[in-house]
Amino acid sequence: MTQIKLFCPATIANLSCGFDVLGLCLDNAGDEMIVRKTEQKGVRITKIVGADLPLETEKNVSGVAALAMLEAYERDFESINFGFEIEIYKNIKAGSGIGSSAASSAGAVFGINELLGQPYSRKDLVQFAMQGEKLASGNAHADNVAPALLGGFTLVRSYAPLDIIRIDSPEELFATVVHPQIELKTSDARSVLKQTVSLKSAIMQWGNVGGLIAGLYTKDYDLIGRSLHDEIVEPLRSVLIPGFDLIKQTALENGALGSGISGSGPSIFALSRGKNTADQIAKAMSDVYENMNLPYEIHVSEINPDGVRIL
Amino acid sequence: MTQIKLFCPATIANLSCGFDVLGLCLDNAGDEMIVRKTEQKGVRITKIVGADLPLETEKNVSGVAALAMLEAYERDFESINFGFEIEIYKNIKAGSGIGSSAASSAGAVFGINELLGQPYSRKDLVQFAMQGEKLASGNAHADNVAPALLGGFTLVRSYAPLDIIRIDSPEELFATVVHPQIELKTSDARSVLKQTVSLKSAIMQWGNVGGLIAGLYTKDYDLIGRSLHDEIVEPLRSVLIPGFDLIKQTALENGALGSGISGSGPSIFALSRGKNTADQIAKAMSDVYENMNLPYEIHVSEINPDGVRIL
Repeated sequence: MTQIKLFCPATIANLSCGFDVLGLCLDNAGDEMIVRKTEQKGVRITKIVGADLPLETEKNVSGVAALAMLEAYERDFESINFGFEIEIYKNIKAGSGIGSSAASSAGAVFGINELLGQPYSRKDLVQFAMQGEKLASGNAHADNVAPALLGGFTLVRSYAPLDIIRIDSPEELFATVVHPQIELKTSDARSVLKQTVSLKSAIMQWGNVGGLIAGLYTKDYDLIGRSLHDEIVEPLRSVLIPGFDLIKQTALENGALGSGISGSGPSIFALSRGKNTADQIAKAMSDVYENMNLPYEIHVSEINPDGVRIL
Repeated sequence: MTQIKLFCPATIANLSCGFDVLGLCLDNAGDEMIVRKTEQKGVRITKIVGADLPLETEKNVSGVAALAMLEAYERDFESINFGFEIEIYKNIKAGSGIGSSAASSAGAVFGINELLGQPYSRKDLVQFAMQGEKLASGNAHADNVAPALLGGFTLVRSYAPLDIIRIDSPEELFATVVHPQIELKTSDARSVLKQTVSLKSAIMQWGNVGGLIAGLYTKDYDLIGRSLHDEIVEPLRSVLIPGFDLIKQTALENGALGSGISGSGPSIFALSRGKNTADQIAKAMSDVYENMNLPYEIHVSEINPDGVRIL
């Protein structure tokens, strides 16, 4: 095998209560990528369609992730006398809050790992893909790359050492994600955060994280819904997102289990039981932004159990 | 049935990462209690053996919990023209950090509920037992009364509204608890806490809460161990407990999955896989306090799956 074509899924990080630790993988929103083995050594980005992103390897998240992986491979296994080129077909807009950079980082390391004969597990690959996130946002977060690589829900229990727990999604869970077409930089979304939180809020937050994890294992949709509550970040960030309160309220009125900011925004997600409810929420969310004359994109997706996949 | 004899179990609250939300139920450490139906209306504490605690109903945690329950019963169901008396045989020392007041509060409401024909579920009873905790510590905590009533592990996802999740313990999990015989008031243990925490520590804490819950559902003993880490409370409280660092280190060196402060202390717990390891930890912990010439009590227990039980 000298070439591989991939679907690189979008992801929802944070999931209300799980700031910086929780994420899930979407199934029908994502990019495509071709990774090709070449005689020339090194990593080259040869084509990017659908986005204005740098082709220089060291300035592109998939390039940086790929280089981090190859450096580790040569240390862990053997030196290689060939290289890789990557074509990226972007559908996920940068700055949308559904893991655009994570999809590219995850795709690159997954593709190269396949072409090398799977020396690493999907979980091993997270650490390399995180280097792409570091380029994108300044922080080597795993809350988007982990679900992009592993599928389902993921919990980053710890960063030092890196400890990722993958959790199956209940079968009937669907996500609706609306992306209002405004620019919201991750750095701006980070700057509104406070570096300290009240102990009382923190206790409520970790009660909800525990409840959400318990709800996923027991397939208790109501418990999942009750746990999708954010004491700490949503009150600060939601003011940056036009129509947030109305969109969330609309989602809940139309049967959502819960709703909140996707990643650092501006996308807003809702989880629901069953596709019909997810579709109804999408319609109702769309009506809100139509009425506001605000351009938007909307996705309804089941939870992707696999993560990045070969097309 | 006009009389019932009960085992009222000791409990471990907080469990390192789960301050104010997590707890587990012990199996062979606890009080006994007799609850008796009487012609005379109201609630009387007629005997307390093993502790110097008030007999006045309104000043005794089991009395206060019982009164809260009867008030609710007369509101929810019917007025009653009889009463109850309670005999308490204390084995759990007050201020030990293994739920002495919770055992009495839980026992009283459980016993009366049985004599009334089980109008309430065990989960319903938590709210009444919490009133005993309010008398004992000034706060209506549920993290000891919930496991005392429900058994296994419990998560208080939320207090308003009260939302308790019960989680089965993996079968091979054992607890070792050592109680150094010093007095540590809950109020003193509370006063060292800071009312704000860093966002970074809080994120680590909720990652660990998620990991611990995941470990319980998947019976992943190593994950349970990795998650038994407290970023926030242990560093502040452990200095109040003589020998804490050495006891914890000794527990880990002898095979404990994790170790930390039980409730607000001074008891120290360790969890381990299998009774042999738990016994070995007990021996090693005992040696530490023997060498310090510090009196102590020690318990090795499996996790009680049932909570309060009829003898």
